[in-house]
Amino acid sequence: MPAQPIYPIRDADDPRLSDFRDLSAADKRPDLARGVVLAEGVPVVERMLASRFVPHAIMGVESKLARLEGLALDVPRYLVTADLMARVVGFHLNRGVLAAARRPAPLEAGELLDGARTVVVLEGVNDHENLGSIFRNGAGLSADAVLFGPRCSDPLYRRAVRVSMGHVLLVPFAHLPASGWPAEGLGVLAEHGFRTVALTPSGEATVAEAVAGGPSRVAYLVGAEGPGLTPETMAAADVRARIPMSRGTDSLNVATAAALALYERART
Amino acid sequence: MPAQPIYPIRDADDPRLSDFRDLSAADKRPDLARGVVLAEGVPVVERMLASRFVPHAIMGVESKLARLEGLALDVPRYLVTADLMARVVGFHLNRGVLAAARRPAPLEAGELLDGARTVVVLEGVNDHENLGSIFRNGAGLSADAVLFGPRCSDPLYRRAVRVSMGHVLLVPFAHLPASGWPAEGLGVLAEHGFRTVALTPSGEATVAEAVAGGPSRVAYLVGAEGPGLTPETMAAADVRARIPMSRGTDSLNVATAAALALYERART
Repeated sequence: MPAQPIYPIRDADDPRLSDFRDLSAADKRPDLARGVVLAEGVPVVERMLASRFVPHAIMGVESKLARLEGLALDVPRYLVTADLMARVVGFHLNRGVLAAARRPAPLEAGELLDGARTVVVLEGVNDHENLGSIFRNGAGLSADAVLFGPRCSDPLYRRAVRVSMGHVLLVPFAHLPASGWPAEGLGVLAEHGFRTVALTPSGEATVAEAVAGGPSRVAYLVGAEGPGLTPETMAAADVRARIPMSRGTDSLNVATAAALALYERART
Repeated sequence: MPAQPIYPIRDADDPRLSDFRDLSAADKRPDLARGVVLAEGVPVVERMLASRFVPHAIMGVESKLARLEGLALDVPRYLVTADLMARVVGFHLNRGVLAAARRPAPLEAGELLDGARTVVVLEGVNDHENLGSIFRNGAGLSADAVLFGPRCSDPLYRRAVRVSMGHVLLVPFAHLPASGWPAEGLGVLAEHGFRTVALTPSGEATVAEAVAGGPSRVAYLVGAEGPGLTPETMAAADVRARIPMSRGTDSLNVATAAALALYERART
């Protein structure tokens, strides 16, 4: 695409802003219905521009578009006031800039696993903030990919994208076979030579023991906060590993547990 | 106090519920004005009952009070419907139970440091969720105390208590001298034999290097997400330490960074 000008917009009904409309209707998930992914805030939009998610529209207030200057020349940018943005979006969006990209075809689990050394596998992680945090921690702590088992939320929902600081757009992810879970999903991991390590407070080994010696490929399995992994998935894993914990009965937040496990892996 | 009955309440204006009133006015901080700490949800109320914060009133719906049966016999318990609770509190509180305790006298930093091996020191951590997460992670990963430097939020605010899963009530905390920061505050740590380790992405050592050999006392200094520690505090610390990070430019969330540092410490 050739360089695009910045288009000032004064009408909240302008059809060029349609992908940004009524975002407060979270229960209706307008992003899904439209097949788009939304990035909000300058750092996250910058990550989108560096990702496989190619934005086709950016809407922002003047100061935020200025901070993107030189980065998004080939994307139509729509200049709005904060008031107009609030009317389009449905609430005051204090990050001041939004980008919309089409959802591309999903990646293949097998292809991601071919090139990976350490991955995180999610089962039933249905909280967007935890999902986002897992991607953020994964990006910082050398997870090569995130694999989805059943009953997880959509990592491309706006809140997950935001909490991840945009890293859901950069850390590759794919879905494991939904049928025959967990045997078939874990089978794909085994075929690729991964040691499957189920994170659970009741693990028979510590995480350090589970990855001691630096196995060539490790897949950490994590479940939702509260219920954790299903008994079937724990039983199907090669090893069940715990984070050594002091005082009290709580497990750590799922994203924190994943961070500690990834840290231990990167350490060895 | 002798065993107390459960009092059914049908009037939202009942004065016995006054400490639970209008909690949605967060900007006015009714808890501070009343000198109380609020615990919400059964697990957090249970932790309050085990803590130095002694509740003087518990308000809950029937199913939640039943789950506390036998634990809070000497505290007046007020039985309400979910509707009445929503009218008192000002919004629907889906955890269904609240306990109120007076704020006790603050603990002394020196006394906490006398008995501590590992502490976390906060500077400018003004986000209640991050504060709560730091206490939760500290409880799980063997922090003996949390010390407050300047410009931090109140850890006893309801949201911090909730995110901490009640661990702000159990992990002891105290304030370091506010004047002469950072020299005087870090001086108190030095007098108690603590190696002060400033967590920063630009650290000259890794966290593992900073606590290698298992020094007898370690204080991790952490700053707010985004700005981090002030240059003065970093310069005044014994060592500046980083979490080894992959890909991208983000630091980790401050509570996650603290968790990794505590994990490394507990490992040695």
